Amino acid sequence: MSGLHVNDLDTPALLLDRKRLDQNLERMRKHADTHGVILRPHLKTSKCLDIARLAAPDADHPITVSTLAEARFFASHGYRDILYAVGIAPGKLDQVEALRNEGCDLAIVLDSLAQAEAVAAHRGMFKVLIEVDADGHRSGVQPDSDTLIEIATILRSAGKDVAGIMIHAGESYACRAREELEQAAAQERAAALTASGQLRAAGHEAPIVSIGSTPTALAATDLSGITELRAGVYMFFDLVMREIGVCQTSDMALSVLTTIIGHDDIHNRLVTDAGWTAMSSDRGATGDKPAPSFGIVADHLSGEPIPNLVVRSMNQEHGLIGHEDDAALNLKDFPIGTRLRIYPNHACATGSMHPRYAVLGNEGEVTDQWDRFRGW
Amino acid sequence: MSGLHVNDLDTPALLLDRKRLDQNLERMRKHADTHGVILRPHLKTSKCLDIARLAAPDADHPITVSTLAEARFFASHGYRDILYAVGIAPGKLDQVEALRNEGCDLAIVLDSLAQAEAVAAHRGMFKVLIEVDADGHRSGVQPDSDTLIEIATILRSAGKDVAGIMIHAGESYACRAREELEQAAAQERAAALTASGQLRAAGHEAPIVSIGSTPTALAATDLSGITELRAGVYMFFDLVMREIGVCQTSDMALSVLTTIIGHDDIHNRLVTDAGWTAMSSDRGATGDKPAPSFGIVADHLSGEPIPNLVVRSMNQEHGLIGHEDDAALNLKDFPIGTRLRIYPNHACATGSMHPRYAVLGNEGEVTDQWDRFRGW
Repeated sequence: MSGLHVNDLDTPALLLDRKRLDQNLERMRKHADTHGVILRPHLKTSKCLDIARLAAPDADHPITVSTLAEARFFASHGYRDILYAVGIAPGKLDQVEALRNEGCDLAIVLDSLAQAEAVAAHRGMFKVLIEVDADGHRSGVQPDSDTLIEIATILRSAGKDVAGIMIHAGESYACRAREELEQAAAQERAAALTASGQLRAAGHEAPIVSIGSTPTALAATDLSGITELRAGVYMFFDLVMREIGVCQTSDMALSVLTTIIGHDDIHNRLVTDAGWTAMSSDRGATGDKPAPSFGIVADHLSGEPIPNLVVRSMNQEHGLIGHEDDAALNLKDFPIGTRLRIYPNHACATGSMHPRYAVLGNEGEVTDQWDRFRGW
Repeated sequence: MSGLHVNDLDTPALLLDRKRLDQNLERMRKHADTHGVILRPHLKTSKCLDIARLAAPDADHPITVSTLAEARFFASHGYRDILYAVGIAPGKLDQVEALRNEGCDLAIVLDSLAQAEAVAAHRGMFKVLIEVDADGHRSGVQPDSDTLIEIATILRSAGKDVAGIMIHAGESYACRAREELEQAAAQERAAALTASGQLRAAGHEAPIVSIGSTPTALAATDLSGITELRAGVYMFFDLVMREIGVCQTSDMALSVLTTIIGHDDIHNRLVTDAGWTAMSSDRGATGDKPAPSFGIVADHLSGEPIPNLVVRSMNQEHGLIGHEDDAALNLKDFPIGTRLRIYPNHACATGSMHPRYAVLGNEGEVTDQWDRFRGW
């Protein structure tokens, strides 16, 4: 207990609702347990040791990271079973080797013959997951392709550990209905089974069959044949996840505390001190709309949304809040100095703008301040 | 000299071309000198002591900041004449007072009776610029309004220092032609002269008449009656400034170094390790287009743009580069491991994602690494 209250915080500040965080962690943990798969939480959303210790409570717990800086950080705090889930650049292999030599069982990911040849040519003892494509999202070899086997053969011939396959069903972010999500999850699993089956038929053990994205992880109804789930944003949730349909507003654990610093009478907007340095410029599900929104507005104490108030635009240190029906906002209802909370489009992006979390307990009490880190 | 070369840097990394930085600083300095106005560089773009010392070479040099964290940081390094150019939140007055009590002549900005009353009611000795609106952008009282005089009267009656007016012609970012820019600059000056004239007619000294935005600062042809220019992004320039017409590609000092980590055959894209954590999600001048671009691509050593290659989309640690004519990109021309440079849409936003600059000298030599800071 810090004795601090949300009214005492300098603004803008990143708020984390502890109760919601705990509930979100528990939900995914139960889901993984129910299906008998290992949960390998992705720590790229939170980038915080305190949150890692809640999501992956002991040092042997498997974790996922998106940068070598995250791998180094968590390895330095004892985590050993780490998956670096971004395709490896050949120039980063020395750093991976160094971490492995220090006792971290860091696994890397690749999806091309060129990367496999670079790994094969390196002196290091590497553990490799081959990235497989489930939905034409961005990366990965096709699950039934010759390339998959060729990559595995190159690696094995050079004495590297072909530990299995990894799939990220990134296109699940385009789903909006439950049946679409279940279909995306089934498709991800099917690709994983095809690819791991091919590898095993070709004589590779491939003990790890790793799938995940928060939407597909939560929508999966059958995970037989899958060994582990990866997900990150489930810890916080956000407006994108709400739009996809995997959370409610009342699940969103992350928000930004801001202060009204002006009234823009011309456009009927509240001017706040939460610009893009506090929110990021992520448009989330309002993506390509000509009138995007950068977050929804809530009471700063209760966290209850104020209907129809949204962040209309931002500059570096200014946010402009308006009503969805422009004229319906009465600026006088929100005097200068009023504090508000903003739920962001994309928790990963908004979190990345801040050096720390102010952790909220009951009735606006700030129970902890947890540091985030960044960089590569 | 660090002995380091751009080929040795971990990617992604923020690159700063020293020669271009120096040229850009010199251009604005000469422009201000020619017009006999003080240049008060805005340090929100660079957020770096080393760059501050180039743009504002001695501790008495006036500077502009956008957060109290910047004010504290630069004050701790000796700067005294600091303008905090974001409307003051009443809750921040204690911090402003503390900085002033430590010997920093920190000036604040406001544009409402409510803020003026909060300042008047505070025990602190404050120095205030009244923000004036030139173009309906976001903030500021109208230059010929009664409110302007009422604010000044409230402040003066309470013994606070009404030091003058501040205008930011934010709508100049919508300009595209030289005559539009000159018109925006003339309009900004006219509003400044009207407002400062009103204040003086009402018995206020108003010694400071501060205007600025990089576009209007550079386009101004007559600055008589203006005492100081504020600008920030002129140090680096970016694609937004190029679109507005105040710089060339060859003036852009800031870029992001990235490595190709994959080939997306399905969409004919190069997959890189520069996602939005390295670039920001700022769409710049491609704003609301359904196919935005997040930067243009260049040779990593020479900095010469590779025609028609742009960043098409991004995820957290992935960038997707494509050709403007999709089919025209031959992925084989860019093997995995190739390094590229990306010039960003918005230098302030891209810079904010990084902990430091790698400063480039001749032929890819990294002469220095300069820390950036962040937070509020």
